[in-house]
Amino acid sequence: MSDTQQQKKLELTQSIESQGQKVRQLKAEKAEKSVIDAEVAALLDLKKQLAVLEGTDGKSGKATKTSFTLKTPKGTKDYNDKDMAIREKVFSTITQVFKKHGAVTIDTPVFELKEILSGKYGEDSKLIYDLADQGGEECSLRYDLTVPFARFLAMNGKEYQNFKRYHIAKVYRRDQPAMTKGRMREFYQCDFDIAGVYDPMIPDAEILRILCEALTNLDIGKFTVKINHRKILDGIFEVCGVPEQSIRPISSAVDKLDKLPWADVKKEMVEEKGLAPECADRIGEYVKLKGSRELLDTLKKDETLMKNANAAAGMKDMELLFDYLDVFEVTEKMSFDLSLARGLDYYTGIIYEAVTEKSAPPKLAEGVVSKKKTNSDELDESTVGVGSIAAGGRYDNLVGMFSGVNKKGVPNLQIPCVGVSLGVERIFSILMSKQKSEEIKSNETQVFVIAVGDGLLKERMQVAKELWDAGIKASYMFKNKPKLDKQFAACDKDMIPFAVIIGKDELDKGQVRIKDMRSKDETQGGGVTIQRADMIQELKSRLSIS
Amino acid sequence: MSDTQQQKKLELTQSIESQGQKVRQLKAEKAEKSVIDAEVAALLDLKKQLAVLEGTDGKSGKATKTSFTLKTPKGTKDYNDKDMAIREKVFSTITQVFKKHGAVTIDTPVFELKEILSGKYGEDSKLIYDLADQGGEECSLRYDLTVPFARFLAMNGKEYQNFKRYHIAKVYRRDQPAMTKGRMREFYQCDFDIAGVYDPMIPDAEILRILCEALTNLDIGKFTVKINHRKILDGIFEVCGVPEQSIRPISSAVDKLDKLPWADVKKEMVEEKGLAPECADRIGEYVKLKGSRELLDTLKKDETLMKNANAAAGMKDMELLFDYLDVFEVTEKMSFDLSLARGLDYYTGIIYEAVTEKSAPPKLAEGVVSKKKTNSDELDESTVGVGSIAAGGRYDNLVGMFSGVNKKGVPNLQIPCVGVSLGVERIFSILMSKQKSEEIKSNETQVFVIAVGDGLLKERMQVAKELWDAGIKASYMFKNKPKLDKQFAACDKDMIPFAVIIGKDELDKGQVRIKDMRSKDETQGGGVTIQRADMIQELKSRLSIS
Repeated sequence: MSDTQQQKKLELTQSIESQGQKVRQLKAEKAEKSVIDAEVAALLDLKKQLAVLEGTDGKSGKATKTSFTLKTPKGTKDYNDKDMAIREKVFSTITQVFKKHGAVTIDTPVFELKEILSGKYGEDSKLIYDLADQGGEECSLRYDLTVPFARFLAMNGKEYQNFKRYHIAKVYRRDQPAMTKGRMREFYQCDFDIAGVYDPMIPDAEILRILCEALTNLDIGKFTVKINHRKILDGIFEVCGVPEQSIRPISSAVDKLDKLPWADVKKEMVEEKGLAPECADRIGEYVKLKGSRELLDTLKKDETLMKNANAAAGMKDMELLFDYLDVFEVTEKMSFDLSLARGLDYYTGIIYEAVTEKSAPPKLAEGVVSKKKTNSDELDESTVGVGSIAAGGRYDNLVGMFSGVNKKGVPNLQIPCVGVSLGVERIFSILMSKQKSEEIKSNETQVFVIAVGDGLLKERMQVAKELWDAGIKASYMFKNKPKLDKQFAACDKDMIPFAVIIGKDELDKGQVRIKDMRSKDETQGGGVTIQRADMIQELKSRLSIS
Repeated sequence: MSDTQQQKKLELTQSIESQGQKVRQLKAEKAEKSVIDAEVAALLDLKKQLAVLEGTDGKSGKATKTSFTLKTPKGTKDYNDKDMAIREKVFSTITQVFKKHGAVTIDTPVFELKEILSGKYGEDSKLIYDLADQGGEECSLRYDLTVPFARFLAMNGKEYQNFKRYHIAKVYRRDQPAMTKGRMREFYQCDFDIAGVYDPMIPDAEILRILCEALTNLDIGKFTVKINHRKILDGIFEVCGVPEQSIRPISSAVDKLDKLPWADVKKEMVEEKGLAPECADRIGEYVKLKGSRELLDTLKKDETLMKNANAAAGMKDMELLFDYLDVFEVTEKMSFDLSLARGLDYYTGIIYEAVTEKSAPPKLAEGVVSKKKTNSDELDESTVGVGSIAAGGRYDNLVGMFSGVNKKGVPNLQIPCVGVSLGVERIFSILMSKQKSEEIKSNETQVFVIAVGDGLLKERMQVAKELWDAGIKASYMFKNKPKLDKQFAACDKDMIPFAVIIGKDELDKGQVRIKDMRSKDETQGGGVTIQRADMIQELKSRLSIS
């Protein structure tokens, strides 16, 4: 053991002694359990450090490894500089669209009081990450961004009754890895919602326009937005004879039609959910319908359906919506699809789901056993590469769940909302697959300062300083006397477009050379020599900055 | 109970039944405890939902409130749109400076394996938030961004031996609220670090240049960067006769000199840390020295100190550093201050701390009892409004702690680092205090489309759509027939600079009006009427976008 280690050991031994005394005193004073626990934890940590230093573990006295398990927790990953370059491009493209439509952003804590989340996700509540009980409040990591948003509105609602907000942040789901493959436990969600009381379908139409703008600007290829209306769907279920209490379960079964053939869905309806087979067959006739606006005309001829109050209300909304979508010139992107049901219970109006050619899942063959589909989220973002690329809908009653009710059982505050969640993790993976990692430029450096000859460190620093002062992104090699080829290699590796090359003779003459590193033209090989005083102007003009 | 509630109750009862059966089956199959626990949790949640629906709690059968505790967890807060506007401005100012210097960003998970964090924060380990043990790995929320960065480097070090990275993200400290006031448990850190083997003091000088650029661009008023060198400080302690094992504790005492008078610090050295009083007095003579580069000359005349190997090495570094700072023209911002010690043990070279006039803490009066100062972090960011605004230093051995050691006890991978952490929470509070909340424009909307007369909803939509297509940020009121004054009020409330005003007559003539909402000139009151075909061009020119 070295002297430094001996000394460290001595310090640790002293710390352990005093920490032990502190714990004993707290216990004697009958301090709060959480306080004692915290101090005991600190004590154990000190003991562990000592054990590592001594090459033993605290209990057995046997030799132990001092190395750490070098990994991120299961279901999480690091994003390196290349990943982040793509991710920032995606976020900036999306937020630009949101801001163009007047959106602002808010941020909420990464964990919420446990009771805020409980009762919101049904069966999937078991996927919520809890914080350890270290005394004080019980907290859980957020499961999505919608519930914290509804909680925020319920708390601050009076100021935020007309509110377009976006929120891009990580959410957490403690999924059983055996259940699904490739599902992340920490992943990004990107939500845009419009909260407030407005005239019908106006915000709904703008959300769909925003979705189309964002997906177009992201350049992820062709996409289609499937739309439907919960009230039309409920009307269909009612006229097909679905008992009232089975409407949501049957709706969940319909929601699987994008992944399963009709026969399997029907089987689930009949065998698992006890629906009469003829009733399921009637539903089957409806949910195979899809098209554009003309589908409204087809449905209008269905007298039974049109007599249903829910269906009629939904139809009225859809007519209006198509009017507005026509003005916004996005109707051609829409597919009015009666098989779209969306899993979440809280939707009350239009629902939608965007699918790209790259994200459309392969249909399972007939007869394959039905796979569990989580119903917890408007978009299952955690599964990368499968399913829809964005989804959402109108939910008019969620905020009321948080606002409490008055004596008559009516929520104190009810703020209708319509929102969309973009599947950013899927968008990343589509964009990452489009380019090779080594072709992604993660830095933004524009100029690399290179010395020919004797290092010229301070001279390189001086040039870099002038460039920084002028707002030009510049680097140089952190060596006193770097070799010329190493400097060019560093410049190439970081894909820096321009080099400023300095040499003693040129500096004495008040000159520098500028070389376009992307140019393979041999006659341009050495760059052009210009007056040092013109360097900034020349570079700005080449970089097209003013 | 309404029909809907009855129906919901029925569904819940059925779900509870089937979930109970699932649990019983898992227990019969002797499934893993964590799996059973998860299903039991889901079952309890369903029962709770039923209890709430029935207006009783599950156990006692008594009536219970259905309202939620509407708050964020202790020590956390929501950031509303105004907060976020300031926060995004701060982040964008800072990242622009980082990117100008070639930095890239990475992201790491919000939680790490518990063992990665343990043994890194000494006594303050008790402030670490643990996740609940729900089976699987033990995890904790990150306490800072430095340890995850060192873990990342140890894992990916071979690719990242020359690396400038920044990371802006939230960190978590479960501080005892009784201990300190106004301390947040969730707060932002903003770190910039340069990792890699370079020639001496070159990256160190660039970090200080970056710090000065960032603080200047943030426009938070005058600031000073206190600098010192750990080796000079260690040399001083050695020549003053501090026993080797007391060097770090005595250094921690010196670190309190920015908050406490010398008499209190000396008392701590002598009474708490057992230092001889004459030894403390000798230290007292050194740590009162501060100045600029000329302080190096003063120290050089101190023959005893110059014979100390540590001090001599530190002096050599400082000479070189000042040379480079001169080139970068930031020397005038520096205060070479021998009382600067920094709390963290892991610094090995230069250390620094930026103080603004607004953030300088009031010195406590002589004789006031010493307050605990956490030693866990290069910058105690969680205390808003007190202390330094940025801090950092060189830490050459931290990555080696994660890389494991070879048979000779030498780390497998050692990557020297130098970094700075900007106190963004303090910067927010300084900037927020500079302007009134109602004066902060949180949206970026440039044009509001207003109708005179009969609502003209589709016409407003059409104009907005044309503006969006042209990249102009535009909104309109989500009402069929909004009143004119309401529209102007909405435009004013959101501080939208321009209005496009449409009326039936003007539209028929192919005209619109454009009004500069900021202009109070009455002759301009109604705006100017222009051809609709010129609308985009006119607005772009007024907004100075091309």
